[in-house]
Amino acid sequence: MKPKLICTGCNRKYPLTESFPRCRNCNEPLEVELITRGEINKGNILKQTILERYKDFFVLEESSSETLHEGFTPLVKLNIPDYRSVYIKNETQNPTWSFKDRGTIVGLLHAISLGYTKIGTVSTGNMAVSVAAYGARAKLKTFILVGSQIPDEKLAPVAIYNPVLVKVSGDYGELYFKSLEVGQEAKIYFLNSDVPFRIEGYKSISFEICEQLNFDVPDFVIVPTSSGGNLRGILKGFIEFNKAGIIEKIPRIVCAQAKGCSPIVNAYISSKDKIERIKTPHTIAHAIENPLPPSGNEVLRKLRKYRGLFVWVTDPEIIEAQSLLAKKGIFCQPASAVSVAALKRLIKEGKILRNDKVVCIITGSGLKYTRALEHHKLHFSECSIDNLSRHLRKMD
Amino acid sequence: MKPKLICTGCNRKYPLTESFPRCRNCNEPLEVELITRGEINKGNILKQTILERYKDFFVLEESSSETLHEGFTPLVKLNIPDYRSVYIKNETQNPTWSFKDRGTIVGLLHAISLGYTKIGTVSTGNMAVSVAAYGARAKLKTFILVGSQIPDEKLAPVAIYNPVLVKVSGDYGELYFKSLEVGQEAKIYFLNSDVPFRIEGYKSISFEICEQLNFDVPDFVIVPTSSGGNLRGILKGFIEFNKAGIIEKIPRIVCAQAKGCSPIVNAYISSKDKIERIKTPHTIAHAIENPLPPSGNEVLRKLRKYRGLFVWVTDPEIIEAQSLLAKKGIFCQPASAVSVAALKRLIKEGKILRNDKVVCIITGSGLKYTRALEHHKLHFSECSIDNLSRHLRKMD
Repeated sequence: MKPKLICTGCNRKYPLTESFPRCRNCNEPLEVELITRGEINKGNILKQTILERYKDFFVLEESSSETLHEGFTPLVKLNIPDYRSVYIKNETQNPTWSFKDRGTIVGLLHAISLGYTKIGTVSTGNMAVSVAAYGARAKLKTFILVGSQIPDEKLAPVAIYNPVLVKVSGDYGELYFKSLEVGQEAKIYFLNSDVPFRIEGYKSISFEICEQLNFDVPDFVIVPTSSGGNLRGILKGFIEFNKAGIIEKIPRIVCAQAKGCSPIVNAYISSKDKIERIKTPHTIAHAIENPLPPSGNEVLRKLRKYRGLFVWVTDPEIIEAQSLLAKKGIFCQPASAVSVAALKRLIKEGKILRNDKVVCIITGSGLKYTRALEHHKLHFSECSIDNLSRHLRKMD
Repeated sequence: MKPKLICTGCNRKYPLTESFPRCRNCNEPLEVELITRGEINKGNILKQTILERYKDFFVLEESSSETLHEGFTPLVKLNIPDYRSVYIKNETQNPTWSFKDRGTIVGLLHAISLGYTKIGTVSTGNMAVSVAAYGARAKLKTFILVGSQIPDEKLAPVAIYNPVLVKVSGDYGELYFKSLEVGQEAKIYFLNSDVPFRIEGYKSISFEICEQLNFDVPDFVIVPTSSGGNLRGILKGFIEFNKAGIIEKIPRIVCAQAKGCSPIVNAYISSKDKIERIKTPHTIAHAIENPLPPSGNEVLRKLRKYRGLFVWVTDPEIIEAQSLLAKKGIFCQPASAVSVAALKRLIKEGKILRNDKVVCIITGSGLKYTRALEHHKLHFSECSIDNLSRHLRKMD
């Protein structure tokens, strides 16, 4: 029997053909019911897509013309002293250089399956780029809504994919909900940050981690958290593989936020059930600077149920973690470094121990936000070609 | 019997432990002798590296601590009308978002195998980033030499990996040779653009293409060409798989250059054996703007032998191809779009026909050089959140 959509707040059910992503009863996000049976469709990954390899765990099938071959990203050791089992899941090697592509392909296929010819999103960063790229490839009319204050240099890497780009003045936070409403009238499927079929795509991160660790599941998975969509998908992936008997336990998921915008962590600390809007968010981790995460309440519910952790980190910690990662060969955007900054804090607080197996999710490329490089010292020296030999000896 | 190094110009042989990449007799580049036996080491790519999968075709073995899991990049259909078998090999999904990583890992392992603790390179772009990243990961002292005119914003994405960064004044073209010489004295292994073990790494591009096309080899492979190193590696990969009986033919390789700096194409057109230095190179395709490619003569020799093609394209053609690729979901740097611009020109000239199977190599991410976005029109509209519904109807 095919699963349905179910409200994460009140369990009300909806058909899979529902395109509105939130419950009409309680306004909490919907999700696809758990898929508890299936196995990995083993084959040559050079010729497979994530939707083919894990097809038992997806309710949609893929046509080869829409995919850009998202996913199948590396899991690499961080190589830090004493902690031998810390890994980086490097999502910067996706087609548009962030994890968003995994959610975009699944959301887009849901839109197409329902007959939509128009898609959209509300974003100024990774998601805008991802939706614009996949929308262009699928030849769908693609609407990207951004805040009116956004500078042209942030728009250009989205505009190159040729979407309908609209600067919207007014409360940017409200635009998430407004776009869903307007999308229903205008027949535009808005692939916003935590829509149910995006969540389905993010499950593949966990499926791959399980394979890469030979099904010896990590103790902790640390996720930089904005809307909560990626965290929900990652947890759901582990739950489904566990229920299907593929893995024996479910890792503890860590919700990591920047101190300057940590509505979910704040609600946890003050033992609340509902998140509250951050009035003046301020952090270098712009990609996760969401003052009112639409899946915030659901992240609280699920992590309480599955013994998750909540942690914020400061901007100096984020910048330091970005530098540490680069010295291990991985240049990520500040928001991504939040996972490694959180790792360091949890080690310091004694919550993560030396022998724990940990995966830090690195969500997007450092090239996405090169202005952050201004926070790092630029060291170089100068010489003439004739003096090169002497100069290199001096620098040695 | 282990292969040796052999001079591509005069066939003089050198031991595999030779670290100087050019012939002391004729100054042409060396290469590893052809490896003509072997098979693919099939396994789960999520847990393999390119050096493990194709180990029969490599003379070095890899330790897991140096790899960033380079390679295994997607082959995606371009989806252009009438030409059904045109594919993009998307090298932008490598660890530092260009093909260079494949060569860097192999060169670095050669350096380590010879006992080097210092590596370096001469580059201002993709190779500088790649060598800095892998050098940092392997904890080798890493020297990156750049021209003295380079602006800080191009240095910062290299500096983040913490190499010894040196601005060298004088003839930048000469620096390639000077660095090799100085490297010998100072015991720095310079992983420059066409050193033999870089070439070995680039072979893996062809190995993957063969697998991805079910060993039904393309008719043409189009390669944006700068030093000539990548093209040499790609051709060598197909030759080795052919000799080993894995594929039945060798594709015709296309050397594609920008008209503003096309020394190899120029030499071919004027039936010369030696390339001549371009005096005033000028193209938007900076990543392939090499006025005197160190493997230029060898590219001429090999493509004449294997029925290769030579083509240049203009800057407007490059910008148009960059835009076309983005509309198919792939945003690449201008130098990469040269392969698709060359495809269009070869179709127009009747050299590539409708049923030909073609692979265009896309070498690096569009995020590497965002100033190129200034050549594309930025379209957007504006509205207020209250008018969103009406505005989207108008834009439809």
